[in-house]
Amino acid sequence: MIKILIDCFGGDHCPEAPVSGALAALKANPDLYLILTGDESLLRKELEGKAYDTGRLEIVHAPEVIGCDEKPTDVVRLKRNSSMMKAIILLRDRDDIAAMVSTGSTGALVTGALVRLGRIPGVIRPAFCPILPTMDGGIVGICDSGANVEVTSAHLRQFAIMASLYMENVYGVRNPRTALLNVGKEAEKGDDIRRETYGLLQETESVNFVGNMESRDLLSGKYDVVVADGFSGNVLVKTTEGTALELLKKIKKDIYSRTLYKMGALLMSRMFKEEKEFMNYQNYGGSVLLGTSKVVVKGHGSSKAVAVEKCIEQAYKMEVSRLSGKIETEIAKYEHYDV
Amino acid sequence: MIKILIDCFGGDHCPEAPVSGALAALKANPDLYLILTGDESLLRKELEGKAYDTGRLEIVHAPEVIGCDEKPTDVVRLKRNSSMMKAIILLRDRDDIAAMVSTGSTGALVTGALVRLGRIPGVIRPAFCPILPTMDGGIVGICDSGANVEVTSAHLRQFAIMASLYMENVYGVRNPRTALLNVGKEAEKGDDIRRETYGLLQETESVNFVGNMESRDLLSGKYDVVVADGFSGNVLVKTTEGTALELLKKIKKDIYSRTLYKMGALLMSRMFKEEKEFMNYQNYGGSVLLGTSKVVVKGHGSSKAVAVEKCIEQAYKMEVSRLSGKIETEIAKYEHYDV
Repeated sequence: MIKILIDCFGGDHCPEAPVSGALAALKANPDLYLILTGDESLLRKELEGKAYDTGRLEIVHAPEVIGCDEKPTDVVRLKRNSSMMKAIILLRDRDDIAAMVSTGSTGALVTGALVRLGRIPGVIRPAFCPILPTMDGGIVGICDSGANVEVTSAHLRQFAIMASLYMENVYGVRNPRTALLNVGKEAEKGDDIRRETYGLLQETESVNFVGNMESRDLLSGKYDVVVADGFSGNVLVKTTEGTALELLKKIKKDIYSRTLYKMGALLMSRMFKEEKEFMNYQNYGGSVLLGTSKVVVKGHGSSKAVAVEKCIEQAYKMEVSRLSGKIETEIAKYEHYDV
Repeated sequence: MIKILIDCFGGDHCPEAPVSGALAALKANPDLYLILTGDESLLRKELEGKAYDTGRLEIVHAPEVIGCDEKPTDVVRLKRNSSMMKAIILLRDRDDIAAMVSTGSTGALVTGALVRLGRIPGVIRPAFCPILPTMDGGIVGICDSGANVEVTSAHLRQFAIMASLYMENVYGVRNPRTALLNVGKEAEKGDDIRRETYGLLQETESVNFVGNMESRDLLSGKYDVVVADGFSGNVLVKTTEGTALELLKKIKKDIYSRTLYKMGALLMSRMFKEEKEFMNYQNYGGSVLLGTSKVVVKGHGSSKAVAVEKCIEQAYKMEVSRLSGKIETEIAKYEHYDV
């Protein structure tokens, strides 16, 4: 039995989305056991009249609510009875629990995970690794995308190792083509950190390093893993999501501007629906936090049930594939370099 | 008469694109005088049979060619007879020449401009400011987008001042809404440089600072100027261009997958053409280099005639509006802070 905690509050569609996502995941995976954290009466109400295996679902009461503007360090210190902090503490304290999923505040989750859970031995900094679809039908993982706005080349090398193992173990990508985000392809481009990292990755046997990537090529399908500092990685991921969303919105608006276009769009309605689904990040699960001692998956704040279900699936696969142990083994090979 | 140099070699469509762009600009602006640099015989051949005002067009012979892999510092030192370096040196030496336009190597152009032209008094670092279209039909300028991969908060403040003046003087944007690219909206987000810059911009009266911008909102139309370090600004601009291009390419491919879609697309062909034109950076001119002692405009390497014409127009407007003098005046107000 794989036990996973679900933080049921903090996202835009709470608690419906986490609860429905949890029930769907329970149904799909017979060896899954879920623990929901949050206000018990609200959760019981949400579960009312729904069919599920009661032997594999548990509720842990955690009534405190985290406000939008609360500082992450305050949340960690003061909100121990919030659904998120309760989940983090249970994850730390109970050996039988493997992972947690949350759609709450990113800052509080990162801080809470770092302070309370700690890291896999050897890992300097945990990092986020969200997934985006590529235009040839594949996917690409970006690591880091926001947990560390300042990094060193040693951090970036570890991000490359962790993300490669993640893509290989959770998504079955063989020997992931791993690139370094930079302002040009040539080895000497970028700042000192980028040049140092280029050299380090060339001599890192655990990583299939294919050179620098310009951000223009993210969706080309030529790369499986992109390594970045949390600042520019965040810009890379959010710009991609934002541009796709804005462009599809514009096309939709333009269609409504003329009857002729509306007729054309009618013939193409299935295609437009598919394009929209293709770029919908809800379909690609959450952004996993790589490098914490136990598995943490962060779903988008706007996650609906299907997105939460995907997050649970990711957490499940990370645990089943024993990703943490593999990260520890590979990282240890380069430990002499650690800062 | 406004005299502008056109570097006619180095881009993908040379010398046709620069020459045709130059002739179109000459025709449109009666007080424009253009000096083409490059291999004279090739330029004469390109001009053959074309009608233009010979009294306002001059050729300066510069036969050397810059290779793709040449180091910028080598180009500046050794390729004085290349079309680009010749233009930079003429721009420096001749008081009657106001500006130059190039579609050649970005690295060589930045290095050459910094070493040979120098800066507007008070400016610490010149920076690129390309323009992107927003979804509400407006435009947004991003400064810097690649000239400085490492920056301080003093640099970023100057980028904000220069780009605001540019948007106001060249594009007529009144009191440009200026934002700082960051990983979140809150003032305390990002690294120390971002937090310092936030404070500085709040007390900079020359800038209408509206706070942090998340990259997701770049095309929303809520911002006129976005300030960034050259690394993340480069990621911001290239990711936007790349995502739009890849998405339109995917839609085109999907249309050809079914007859029904092809029929629909036929009714919408004009709309699709407009979307493509909308996202075509050729239509928005080049990336101007703000802060050099004379005006330098960098066109995309793939620029066609229309893009080169737009670049010339930008250079012309920058000169006519006396942008450099205005930058000097505003920058001087905060000089006590300079590093």
